[in-house]
Amino acid sequence: MTDAQLSELKHELRAIHDLQAAAAVLEWDQSTYMPAAGAAARGRQIALLGRLAHERMTAPRMGELLKGLGGVADADSIEGALVRRARREHERATRVPGELVSAIKSHTAESYVAWTKARPANDFAAVRPYLEKTVELSRRWSACFPEAEHVLDPLIDAQDPGMSAASVRSLFAELRAALVPIVKTLLARPAPERAFLGRPFPKAAQRAFGEQVIRQLGYDFERGRQDETAHPFMIRFSAGDVRITTRFDEADPTEALFGTVHEAGHAMYEQNIAAELDGTPLGEGTSAGVHESQSRLWENLVARSRPFWTRFYPALLETFPEQLAGIDADAFHRAINTVERSLIRTDSDEVTYNLHVMLRFDLEAQLLEGTLPVKDLPDAWNARIEADLGVRPPSDALGCMQDVHWYCTTVGGTFQGYALGNLMAAQFFAAAERALGDVDAAIAEGDFAPLRGWLTENVYRHGARYLPDELVEKATGAPLSIAPFIAYLKGKYGPLYGVESW
Amino acid sequence: MTDAQLSELKHELRAIHDLQAAAAVLEWDQSTYMPAAGAAARGRQIALLGRLAHERMTAPRMGELLKGLGGVADADSIEGALVRRARREHERATRVPGELVSAIKSHTAESYVAWTKARPANDFAAVRPYLEKTVELSRRWSACFPEAEHVLDPLIDAQDPGMSAASVRSLFAELRAALVPIVKTLLARPAPERAFLGRPFPKAAQRAFGEQVIRQLGYDFERGRQDETAHPFMIRFSAGDVRITTRFDEADPTEALFGTVHEAGHAMYEQNIAAELDGTPLGEGTSAGVHESQSRLWENLVARSRPFWTRFYPALLETFPEQLAGIDADAFHRAINTVERSLIRTDSDEVTYNLHVMLRFDLEAQLLEGTLPVKDLPDAWNARIEADLGVRPPSDALGCMQDVHWYCTTVGGTFQGYALGNLMAAQFFAAAERALGDVDAAIAEGDFAPLRGWLTENVYRHGARYLPDELVEKATGAPLSIAPFIAYLKGKYGPLYGVESW
Repeated sequence: MTDAQLSELKHELRAIHDLQAAAAVLEWDQSTYMPAAGAAARGRQIALLGRLAHERMTAPRMGELLKGLGGVADADSIEGALVRRARREHERATRVPGELVSAIKSHTAESYVAWTKARPANDFAAVRPYLEKTVELSRRWSACFPEAEHVLDPLIDAQDPGMSAASVRSLFAELRAALVPIVKTLLARPAPERAFLGRPFPKAAQRAFGEQVIRQLGYDFERGRQDETAHPFMIRFSAGDVRITTRFDEADPTEALFGTVHEAGHAMYEQNIAAELDGTPLGEGTSAGVHESQSRLWENLVARSRPFWTRFYPALLETFPEQLAGIDADAFHRAINTVERSLIRTDSDEVTYNLHVMLRFDLEAQLLEGTLPVKDLPDAWNARIEADLGVRPPSDALGCMQDVHWYCTTVGGTFQGYALGNLMAAQFFAAAERALGDVDAAIAEGDFAPLRGWLTENVYRHGARYLPDELVEKATGAPLSIAPFIAYLKGKYGPLYGVESW
Repeated sequence: MTDAQLSELKHELRAIHDLQAAAAVLEWDQSTYMPAAGAAARGRQIALLGRLAHERMTAPRMGELLKGLGGVADADSIEGALVRRARREHERATRVPGELVSAIKSHTAESYVAWTKARPANDFAAVRPYLEKTVELSRRWSACFPEAEHVLDPLIDAQDPGMSAASVRSLFAELRAALVPIVKTLLARPAPERAFLGRPFPKAAQRAFGEQVIRQLGYDFERGRQDETAHPFMIRFSAGDVRITTRFDEADPTEALFGTVHEAGHAMYEQNIAAELDGTPLGEGTSAGVHESQSRLWENLVARSRPFWTRFYPALLETFPEQLAGIDADAFHRAINTVERSLIRTDSDEVTYNLHVMLRFDLEAQLLEGTLPVKDLPDAWNARIEADLGVRPPSDALGCMQDVHWYCTTVGGTFQGYALGNLMAAQFFAAAERALGDVDAAIAEGDFAPLRGWLTENVYRHGARYLPDELVEKATGAPLSIAPFIAYLKGKYGPLYGVESW
């Protein structure tokens, strides 16, 4: 590896990164403040920036540089990790023909519009032809990687590098076996009282409380900001500018509160990546699953924990004295940890959530394998959720049309990350506890620095230097497993639901 | 001109436009919502987009296309005007070496930082070396156009195409001769009472009132938005997204009110350019002067007129009943049209304003010609403003360091547009009155559609199709002259100040 080649590579990768960051600013603005009339031109501008980044990534010179530098493509050094990550991106960008990328983009844009109309009308027939074509396009995308063992593999690898249909299935089979009896046990118990959460909680007070919380957790408002959008997200423009968005429902304060913490979790990951990686392909989270582990860790393992509310419930009570009249911290904690037969993934509790994910993962595998025709999707969905959770969706809007994913991007590759994130969150948290001792006591005192420090040291600062499995093993001393997550659920929900032995 | 060549040209020009629009979004965000910690990466991202646009504009293929299409480079057809404008931009981009552009950018960025510190400290010595280098760089920029008669010509032409030092000087000489006696006469009269404008006017009410006003004038909030910035501006991303910014001073409601109308005037120009020109080099205002004519027309000829306040004073009084207690519409109108010996250009009234501009224009000519060394600038400034307005700045902060321009961009080319705009505003308004009849009566009824319609038909829709002098002649039937402006001042300030004959 010559210094001149490496320097040229870094320079070119920085330009690609800056084009992508510029496109991200345009997307952020589109979701927050852009007048609707600006949409057509904005779409064109974003597409141009994407095209320019793609052209540079697939340029012959980029291929030459990466080939010349290929001998050190591993995580032993920052440079080696950089070359490895850049090669992944170069290879994916060169393997998939530009026309296919364009065809997928324009088709899924139309499909999204059809879905926004069909879902409220509960009209699956209207989206069916779109979804059929999306499945076909997703298969073609996957076929650009003919060495793959399973049609899902390239799609999964794009989001969760190093993972495959086989490895995810193996984990999910174990997870399912462990989870089903827990769900059964908990659903047989009486549900906590939580009607009080439906009282009106004014938005301005919700916002102020949420900001106070994430500031204490460690989200750095000096290097970010929070705005409102229909669908909350985290977005990074640079190390100094990592933004989050949220939304408020006055009839349900948990939406904004836990949503805000969720996005702040994603953002704290990005804000604490080592400065030297900024503007390179390593200056971002390493995978969808690891990213989700951080949003879920802060949302669930921290902000839905009892010690967290020891610290924050007095302030919440002061903010909403009428709404929370007669509710103590224990009752509040029980209410925000209700386990139930939910139809909607995004509203579901952390115990049943992974069942929702596995349902989607299995169905999309069948769609791509060709064993499930799109026309049979509603029945397959309804049968599966009834088997898993004992509820049958009264409509496809609340069934197989509830998530935007299959209607706005390829089918396959996106859902597994949500469940992987839950598993990793528990495994990282358990490792932090082993290293730090009584994390709960610090949380109860509002001291999040030790936990954040451990995560920064072992996860955040590395950015995308390590593949997810390398990172998990390095940080926790063990490969990814379901054990910490199952132990966490039992340890938390046993006392909450009065289950003395599982 | 072959269709294929033209189509290729348009395609390439659109990409350049979209890169510039993307950079504009990044700049807007930088001024409105970006956390300060994002500045370094943002600067790099904006610079990259500018470089990519510049590379495309100077590409050999662009030169070939423009040469091939050169036979029709005039405003007789949209295509001809497009080729003419694109040739101008291509020529300017190719004539000035990239290294000089970079040197100017990085030097002026440093100079700006020095100015932000030196101005509050009233330390001209601290900015002097920066300004000396800026003058030198400005001369080098100008020297890229060796055919120019005067060092200012290329700098002026870049902002006000077709204008030159000679043509501006000739206009300014006439303007000065006519203006000085008017100023002298008015300054000899007693000033109107306006202490009430210093009472506190709460910001939220100012904002609501300003939005109500510009909505009625015709600023389209469906295709734009207003935010707050330290220095107000208008910015266009596309026909459907033309934004403005404003700022509020609770101790001076005229700052936000007239500033908001000023920016809305710029924006109505951009919002009403013919849709077919969007995304081309013709889809923008044609010059700095014509642009300023629209901000000043709406700010001064409309919003500082007596009929305007016939319509709006009742609402203003209702919004600020205590602040305006005992002040009627006539008194308010007199107060907002006070003529005075002002030190600061941006705070000055419309009668003395052009004297401030001419002072700068003459001094920057001398700086560039080499007849005024930078070290002598403070004395030259102070002597000139004392001669013109009878006041001597107590500090350089209130003298030659008051404007950002010389400290953040080249010296020369930017100030003349402010005065040209004032002249054009009066000439356009007079032409509209001839065409429409009683414009004042419509304004007094809050009906701005006729005036806006005339401006759209004769100015706005053409975008940059015509050069400024072509546009003025086409719209008003006469070349640009000082007569309409002088007639406007006499017609307005005579009654206001009790001057019966001039």
